[in-house]
Amino acid sequence: ILGLGLKLLKFPKKAWKLGVNDPRKFIHAIKVAIALTLVSLFYYVKPLYEGVGGNAMWAVMTVVVLFQYTAGETISRTINRICATSIAGLLAIVVQWVASRAGDHVEPIIVGVSLFMLASAATFSRFIPIIKARFDYGAMIFILTYSLISISGYRADELLDMGLQRIFTIVIGASLCIITSITICPVWAGQELHFSIIAKMDKLANSLDGCVAQYFIDQTSYVSDEEYDKKLLGYKCVLSSKEAEDSMANFARWEPAHGQFRFRHPWKQYLKVGASMRSCATCIDALLGCVNLENKDPSDMKEQIGDVSLRLSANCAGVIREIAKTSRNMTRSSCVDILVEEMNNTAQELQEVLKSNNPINNAANNPTKAHGPPQLVLMETFQLLTLASLILEISARVEDIV
Amino acid sequence: ILGLGLKLLKFPKKAWKLGVNDPRKFIHAIKVAIALTLVSLFYYVKPLYEGVGGNAMWAVMTVVVLFQYTAGETISRTINRICATSIAGLLAIVVQWVASRAGDHVEPIIVGVSLFMLASAATFSRFIPIIKARFDYGAMIFILTYSLISISGYRADELLDMGLQRIFTIVIGASLCIITSITICPVWAGQELHFSIIAKMDKLANSLDGCVAQYFIDQTSYVSDEEYDKKLLGYKCVLSSKEAEDSMANFARWEPAHGQFRFRHPWKQYLKVGASMRSCATCIDALLGCVNLENKDPSDMKEQIGDVSLRLSANCAGVIREIAKTSRNMTRSSCVDILVEEMNNTAQELQEVLKSNNPINNAANNPTKAHGPPQLVLMETFQLLTLASLILEISARVEDIV
Repeated sequence: ILGLGLKLLKFPKKAWKLGVNDPRKFIHAIKVAIALTLVSLFYYVKPLYEGVGGNAMWAVMTVVVLFQYTAGETISRTINRICATSIAGLLAIVVQWVASRAGDHVEPIIVGVSLFMLASAATFSRFIPIIKARFDYGAMIFILTYSLISISGYRADELLDMGLQRIFTIVIGASLCIITSITICPVWAGQELHFSIIAKMDKLANSLDGCVAQYFIDQTSYVSDEEYDKKLLGYKCVLSSKEAEDSMANFARWEPAHGQFRFRHPWKQYLKVGASMRSCATCIDALLGCVNLENKDPSDMKEQIGDVSLRLSANCAGVIREIAKTSRNMTRSSCVDILVEEMNNTAQELQEVLKSNNPINNAANNPTKAHGPPQLVLMETFQLLTLASLILEISARVEDIV
Repeated sequence: ILGLGLKLLKFPKKAWKLGVNDPRKFIHAIKVAIALTLVSLFYYVKPLYEGVGGNAMWAVMTVVVLFQYTAGETISRTINRICATSIAGLLAIVVQWVASRAGDHVEPIIVGVSLFMLASAATFSRFIPIIKARFDYGAMIFILTYSLISISGYRADELLDMGLQRIFTIVIGASLCIITSITICPVWAGQELHFSIIAKMDKLANSLDGCVAQYFIDQTSYVSDEEYDKKLLGYKCVLSSKEAEDSMANFARWEPAHGQFRFRHPWKQYLKVGASMRSCATCIDALLGCVNLENKDPSDMKEQIGDVSLRLSANCAGVIREIAKTSRNMTRSSCVDILVEEMNNTAQELQEVLKSNNPINNAANNPTKAHGPPQLVLMETFQLLTLASLILEISARVEDIV
């Protein structure tokens, strides 16, 4: 119990730190509260209340459910909700009308069967990948609206009026959401994606540097070990970033032009860049495994290869950093080509060194194949890095053109 | 437009195939429809309708919003919803009572300020990782209920009654959800997690086999190339499985005992196993990169090493398969220990072969370092596989004990 108490005591501190690290989280919380307070004015101000009546509840609900962290997500949910509500409402009214013509006894049966069919169809459609990615929320709202309207329709007879009023209140809530989300310190999904990719590039470059340096340079020269480790393991966050990137690119598509981003910004390029960064990260993972596995023996061989290897990894990291820099400013880079060429040259050089040295020295100097893997895997890493840098290069250009 | 038309034409076919491949998706859709139809009986059957009145709407809404694919998710959402609604409702009533004592002019101010404060606090709490993982939905429902009740409280005066009725209808909807979800062909998150991990083990073993075989054995002997490629790339699905596994383990915790799974099944073990499988998969990824990179030259050396390498990879795959088999039956495996030992022996052997052969043959036979990497990376793969197999072993035992 004492442990639990301590945990609870630490909890607010942690939460506070979370907010201080990223003040936009505080701002988001306040934005939601503002939107809610504004919408509740519909209740407090009498003339407004008389305009919409008890349906104002729907406006409140809309705000709570629709307001999301990024502007793109809010917009995408809003469009989903409004479309789904309209379609389901219309469909429900048509079915109701047909049913009411069919006679008193058949009416509940028709309504019930249609509800059953549509609910199962819509639920099933949520499993289809493309619908799941973009219209999952819409499908849920479709079921919700259809069942609410078709059920209450059996009792209340002013369906069309009710439906219109409901849509009106939803539109009020939704526009409040969108306005608050876009005007007050907006968080754009596209911008988030852009900067998260760039930050990951930097992390990747640091990891690569650190990992090769750890093997070839004496480790004791590093003072702050913890910070160093953190840098080294930065690539890990690249590995598990697929889903977050996918959803951000998905939301980014709904956003209007903002800042440096025009309307048809090539968001898919970011996903490609992300994928090649992940393949780099898996290589670094394997490389790091090798580095930790080997016993460090300071042989001549190691020195010889170490020099070139270090230069190569520095070049790779340099290319990644340069691309990060140019895409941050979204300019066509003038020196990426040069850096890539330099990297290729260094790689060639490393290959030469390996070819001339490896077998003989290996046999002479050490009984186990001590420094085999790092260089060889490095070769591979390098290959993937080249691939990645090419794709990154393409994307930097595409960004420039669009 | 024609292309779009063709796509639309193909769409139902694809959807149908999706359902046929996993009939539980059809069943789930039908389950949702059944629950909805049952709940709509509250409207159609007169005595029931008079019992709950217009609030029956909330029961319908509850069913639509709560019903999820796996039983665990449904239960977790239900508990979230009921707790959040109760807490928010109580809080709203207390604040309302205090406000109504304070006088007519101050009342809306107190209500408004409390709404603002609580809404921003609850929204912010959704960013805290542990709350995001387990109570995200609850926090949203908290805001929703609080704002609805506190706002409508200003107009309607029978707050307590309304709140109780609302909770009553929500409980009806929720219990309908849980009953349908558990009794009719239930999909347990725990079971899903269990079998998906086992299926991934098999895929991993196949990839490992295929990848090493591709390098050492002539590839033309494989007849169906596409199927082979599919097998080879099976490890990819292991790489990006983290989030799905996390959420399934999270939901599995809420589920009651079912089948072979008792109440406090060690779901965290699955996450550990999943993590080590991912590290194996990154190794296979790197290995495959090497395999594709090398030009295939049939030298003596390759044959020599190839034999042992093939045996080693077969052993690794064997260990993984054995663990998959025993965890499928959840029995303590009698031969995993033997297999692991055998694998270790083979690994030792490979090391010996490398030690005695590599440098000289390398120098003699081929100018480029053609078959260096695969074996060496294989060593590393092997190491990680051993690690993984140990963890898997532990988990197999824990499953047995619990």
